Amino acid sequence: MYGSTFGNILKISTWGESHGAGIGVVIDGCPAGLPLSLEDIQAYLDRRKPGQSRFTTQRKEADTVDILSGVFEGKTTGTPISLMVRNTDQRSHDYSQIADCYRPGHADRNYDIKYGFRDYRGGGRSSGRETIGRVAAGAVAAKILKELGVEVTAYTLSIGPVTIDKSKFDKEEMGRNALYMPDADAAKKAQAYLEDCMKEKNSSGGMVECVIKGVPAGIGEPAFEKLDAALAKAIFSIGAVKSFEVGDGIAAASSDGLHNNDAYRMDEEGNVRKKTNHSGGITGGISDGAPIVLRAAFKPTPSVAAVQETVNRRGENIEISIKGRHDPIIVPRAVVVVESMAAFVILDAMLGSMTTRMDAVKDFFKNL
Amino acid sequence: MYGSTFGNILKISTWGESHGAGIGVVIDGCPAGLPLSLEDIQAYLDRRKPGQSRFTTQRKEADTVDILSGVFEGKTTGTPISLMVRNTDQRSHDYSQIADCYRPGHADRNYDIKYGFRDYRGGGRSSGRETIGRVAAGAVAAKILKELGVEVTAYTLSIGPVTIDKSKFDKEEMGRNALYMPDADAAKKAQAYLEDCMKEKNSSGGMVECVIKGVPAGIGEPAFEKLDAALAKAIFSIGAVKSFEVGDGIAAASSDGLHNNDAYRMDEEGNVRKKTNHSGGITGGISDGAPIVLRAAFKPTPSVAAVQETVNRRGENIEISIKGRHDPIIVPRAVVVVESMAAFVILDAMLGSMTTRMDAVKDFFKNL
Amino acid sequence: MYGSTFGNILKISTWGESHGAGIGVVIDGCPAGLPLSLEDIQAYLDRRKPGQSRFTTQRKEADTVDILSGVFEGKTTGTPISLMVRNTDQRSHDYSQIADCYRPGHADRNYDIKYGFRDYRGGGRSSGRETIGRVAAGAVAAKILKELGVEVTAYTLSIGPVTIDKSKFDKEEMGRNALYMPDADAAKKAQAYLEDCMKEKNSSGGMVECVIKGVPAGIGEPAFEKLDAALAKAIFSIGAVKSFEVGDGIAAASSDGLHNNDAYRMDEEGNVRKKTNHSGGITGGISDGAPIVLRAAFKPTPSVAAVQETVNRRGENIEISIKGRHDPIIVPRAVVVVESMAAFVILDAMLGSMTTRMDAVKDFFKNL
Amino acid sequence: MYGSTFGNILKISTWGESHGAGIGVVIDGCPAGLPLSLEDIQAYLDRRKPGQSRFTTQRKEADTVDILSGVFEGKTTGTPISLMVRNTDQRSHDYSQIADCYRPGHADRNYDIKYGFRDYRGGGRSSGRETIGRVAAGAVAAKILKELGVEVTAYTLSIGPVTIDKSKFDKEEMGRNALYMPDADAAKKAQAYLEDCMKEKNSSGGMVECVIKGVPAGIGEPAFEKLDAALAKAIFSIGAVKSFEVGDGIAAASSDGLHNNDAYRMDEEGNVRKKTNHSGGITGGISDGAPIVLRAAFKPTPSVAAVQETVNRRGENIEISIKGRHDPIIVPRAVVVVESMAAFVILDAMLGSMTTRMDAVKDFFKNL
Repeated sequence: MYGSTFGNILKISTWGESHGAGIGVVIDGCPAGLPLSLEDIQAYLDRRKPGQSRFTTQRKEADTVDILSGVFEGKTTGTPISLMVRNTDQRSHDYSQIADCYRPGHADRNYDIKYGFRDYRGGGRSSGRETIGRVAAGAVAAKILKELGVEVTAYTLSIGPVTIDKSKFDKEEMGRNALYMPDADAAKKAQAYLEDCMKEKNSSGGMVECVIKGVPAGIGEPAFEKLDAALAKAIFSIGAVKSFEVGDGIAAASSDGLHNNDAYRMDEEGNVRKKTNHSGGITGGISDGAPIVLRAAFKPTPSVAAVQETVNRRGENIEISIKGRHDPIIVPRAVVVVESMAAFVILDAMLGSMTTRMDAVKDFFKNL
Repeated sequence: MYGSTFGNILKISTWGESHGAGIGVVIDGCPAGLPLSLEDIQAYLDRRKPGQSRFTTQRKEADTVDILSGVFEGKTTGTPISLMVRNTDQRSHDYSQIADCYRPGHADRNYDIKYGFRDYRGGGRSSGRETIGRVAAGAVAAKILKELGVEVTAYTLSIGPVTIDKSKFDKEEMGRNALYMPDADAAKKAQAYLEDCMKEKNSSGGMVECVIKGVPAGIGEPAFEKLDAALAKAIFSIGAVKSFEVGDGIAAASSDGLHNNDAYRMDEEGNVRKKTNHSGGITGGISDGAPIVLRAAFKPTPSVAAVQETVNRRGENIEISIKGRHDPIIVPRAVVVVESMAAFVILDAMLGSMTTRMDAVKDFFKNL
Repeated sequence: MYGSTFGNILKISTWGESHGAGIGVVIDGCPAGLPLSLEDIQAYLDRRKPGQSRFTTQRKEADTVDILSGVFEGKTTGTPISLMVRNTDQRSHDYSQIADCYRPGHADRNYDIKYGFRDYRGGGRSSGRETIGRVAAGAVAAKILKELGVEVTAYTLSIGPVTIDKSKFDKEEMGRNALYMPDADAAKKAQAYLEDCMKEKNSSGGMVECVIKGVPAGIGEPAFEKLDAALAKAIFSIGAVKSFEVGDGIAAASSDGLHNNDAYRMDEEGNVRKKTNHSGGITGGISDGAPIVLRAAFKPTPSVAAVQETVNRRGENIEISIKGRHDPIIVPRAVVVVESMAAFVILDAMLGSMTTRMDAVKDFFKNL
Repeated sequence: MYGSTFGNILKISTWGESHGAGIGVVIDGCPAGLPLSLEDIQAYLDRRKPGQSRFTTQRKEADTVDILSGVFEGKTTGTPISLMVRNTDQRSHDYSQIADCYRPGHADRNYDIKYGFRDYRGGGRSSGRETIGRVAAGAVAAKILKELGVEVTAYTLSIGPVTIDKSKFDKEEMGRNALYMPDADAAKKAQAYLEDCMKEKNSSGGMVECVIKGVPAGIGEPAFEKLDAALAKAIFSIGAVKSFEVGDGIAAASSDGLHNNDAYRMDEEGNVRKKTNHSGGITGGISDGAPIVLRAAFKPTPSVAAVQETVNRRGENIEISIKGRHDPIIVPRAVVVVESMAAFVILDAMLGSMTTRMDAVKDFFKNL
């Protein structure tokens, strides 16, 4: 397999299986001199840690991160930052029951066909735990972005049929409820809906929205490295994502030019402003200075306790009901993963933009 | 700027502006010995050629392709295939009126901020003509895929409020109407809708759907090179795309596990089949053997003749109405672009899968 | 085939065969706002043009370059710069005699085995004409470097047994003699030696040396992108190169630490200076501020008129004497190719260094 | 910093400093189903382990490797293989004396200028310990190559003025003497020479030669991914390398075409053979089926105990004599590093060649 490395100027390489020795990431290209502590990274990992509410798997995973390289006396050295989380709670027997069969909605069978063996230990590389490396790297990217005046915020937009009411948007509320929803009423409704799902041994899908503020205009490249194209790949590389949108997204298809175009006007301070933000902050693949708004749809957790039809490796029709401790909803824990991938892509694109203009390049080396 | 090269095993590098000498692409990594003719490529380019109906710009663009390298005695040599289309109809004066101002919904201002100058000749690199190189490369990819038993078919799914009725799906119909819609009734309704848009000097958005048949299970890579992630980037790198979906897409967010999971069953021939295809042929980023189904939403053409508010380079509020010959709808001409990018990504992933298993690698060199 | 694209921040993709329609290069990532004219590029191409002395092939090749994209109103736009040279003098019959056999010292047989066909038209992609794209790109890189205060100078160091006497180094002399040798006496001796080679229907090898002045200390990356490693690949990717050295090069193997180390001293202006430059300006893969000095050994032209033993495609032993118009020595025309590749690598590394330090990154975006 | 990832189909990403928590590598793209054990990797690491003779540093480094991911039930899974060696013996005080000054011949000052701080703990990323990750990866590459019938063998060619006599080449002898020299007499002379160096508190340079047998003809790519160009970068990315050659190398510059060309003849079995191997197994960047022969020159260890002139961070002229435990010669421990990098490049190129021909691609998917 290849494809475990991502990024242009800044590169991350993730490694690790759900039931191996650990999970990790190597970050290459991080500028030298950034103050970076274990706490900076652990804070992000804790947001995806399971067992925090009855809506997430009850597996006990400490997910404590180690910094193995790239930081000296509290600052990044400019060399690769190697981060690792040891796998602790590995009750493989939880999975023994499915060792021989293919779980519907999972990649079990695809992996078996591709690699020629069945890793029955809970998905191996396709496990959600692969995102640990992404989140650890996202914590570093977010810290750098903060120093550049850029803030990335993701939250739960909807769970099943329950969507937040933007007029009630309350950033503080996100931290208060178990679902990372910035709307207390919606969170209550969503929790009731999830209770029902769990009673029926079923699971739910949902959506995550992410807003990035402070990105200057002019970030992103024409052609294949459009800022939204890079974001699309990053977000779609998160397991369970089935749709990705920017700005009005799918609604733009049924709109018309006069409504969808964002008119420009001069504001009091003599700055150019858009009267609307249908574009979601990106036009022609390049940031326009308005907040960048993106959304991703997550499919329902495929592991459900209810009885399902499937086949086993011997080609026999069978029925299974998946035991074990699974999230009835992926979304709340996926919020920080979306935030991390978005932060990484924005930072990589900003760093890439430093060589765009001859005058800036000349200034850089003149000041050297 | 960087980012004009795309692909892993197979690489395409596009170049050219809307009003330069020409537009082209270099395809690197094409296997040697593929029969390839000018006609193979021209046939694809003709599908995106303007002036074919009153719903596409009346600009006269011959868009005749030249093969400059990589083909010898009718077959690919394995060396880079360089393809070029000369720009012919360049009535720059059509654009002179907007030389000084920023068109709403266009990347004009972003480019100016990024590069430090205003290319007033019709968008330069952000012009739809950049897709000529993609389509030329797509023609080559599609020809190889055909030899591997893979068929890629894209069509117009919706225009504004008008969506096709899948029960009336008629592949032949696509070629008959000006909108590439596989449903005659929907095409009629859509044309009426577009007539109204044009009367109002307005434009419309729409959606393209693409189905890929014959891809074996096991194609695509975990982590960042998931097959759907690679497709997401490829499709989102087409200007005007605002959303990308696979399978049930955004609908999966409001679904539940028991409905969204595709159950496996053995068929009469003793092959494993999925009873449904909610996944759209990809699970965990790897093909599952079912048809791959993807969709993209295109925003309305930003160039409309109606009056719009904007600003000019001097920071003054102004009003413009964009003259010139613009498509009231991008979608019909974008169909072949989506098909081309999808073909390229699928082929690249299939070639990449040849080194996945040790036994296959050993067989290859044993047979050498 | 892949591998026709080179570079990290700045990328070049070359295409074209010796006897196809033309030869070209696409330069992606060139900063916007660089004044660039046809003359800038043609001047470099003229230095590798054949037919300039009796020591180079008498083929008439105008090698006139076209700029197809990336330049607007005399300045680079930041979009891909596409450059093409049409092939003119294509007397394929000169090559017909070798259509069926494998020329010793050439890649004929390797290509046939690799790609499954014999391009008898004079080497196709392995022809020296592939370097046209590199030189055109080198002209652009050299122009940018000049604006950054960096000067790249290559020259003929030796031809067969004749090496220049550095105490007689005369930069002006390079342009005066047909061999690009900066030493008039050595040039005379070398010309006499070449006359003898030609009488014997034989050819000669030689060496090129390149000195790069003005590169600030700190350019290049540890690990795999060491500045000398990147230069090694770039120079070794020129056909016929058999050795690459930096600084004392191979002599360092028989030296000792006390002699090979460059001692540091403070100079009158209070700047750190090295008393010697055994390192050739690069230590640990990173520039140390001293002139960068590299050398490459070129093998003798494999095409010789004398009779040689070989085999044909039918597996028969045969004898051939290669007709046609071949250089008795590659080196004089290779000088500008080495200069071009070196310039490209140095520029790419300098651009790459702009994101190394957090303070510089913050300053860049603060000033935005 | 970037540049810690290397390879096309197969990718390695190394991380770690000489005095951090550890050193490691992530191998991405390794085919699934390869039997791989800790012993396979440890055996290679032991060859570069210090403290094995009085000619290598007396530092005690166990250098025991852990497999953190990518291997399941004794076989590779096709997912990233993460390998780590914990740093044990970290007597930083050994280095405290040089914390404030720049060691001649080292990258200390370049790093300080580049990154803005002085890592006084023994070179950090520029330390020879960075090669641990390369050797661990090389062990995996060599094991795969063995299954493909390819054997890579490196040895010490010369130390200071002492070069082996090829007529006395004895592969077994390599393991017997402390210098990895395949010639007992030369080894004795070299040891005497090194004793003298050590008495004079000085160090010595030397050369490593590497021979690769069993590579089929047709491996490598034209243009920038020539097999010798890829090898040049890989070998030159090893610290202390100052020259790289293939086949006759630098000697080709003073040779002539008739001597340097390898004539083809049919052998008894009706196979094509070259009468000589001046090319070193590579012509036009592509393997010709003969053994691949390459050489690298290593400069003398810069750390010597004798007194040297240098400057400190405050810009004062000072004198230092470097204490600590340093190799008087790098070469014997570098042999396995050269072997590892060569193995990796050859394997990567062989995997890359699997998509070269359309017929092979079609066969692959037909057999699927």
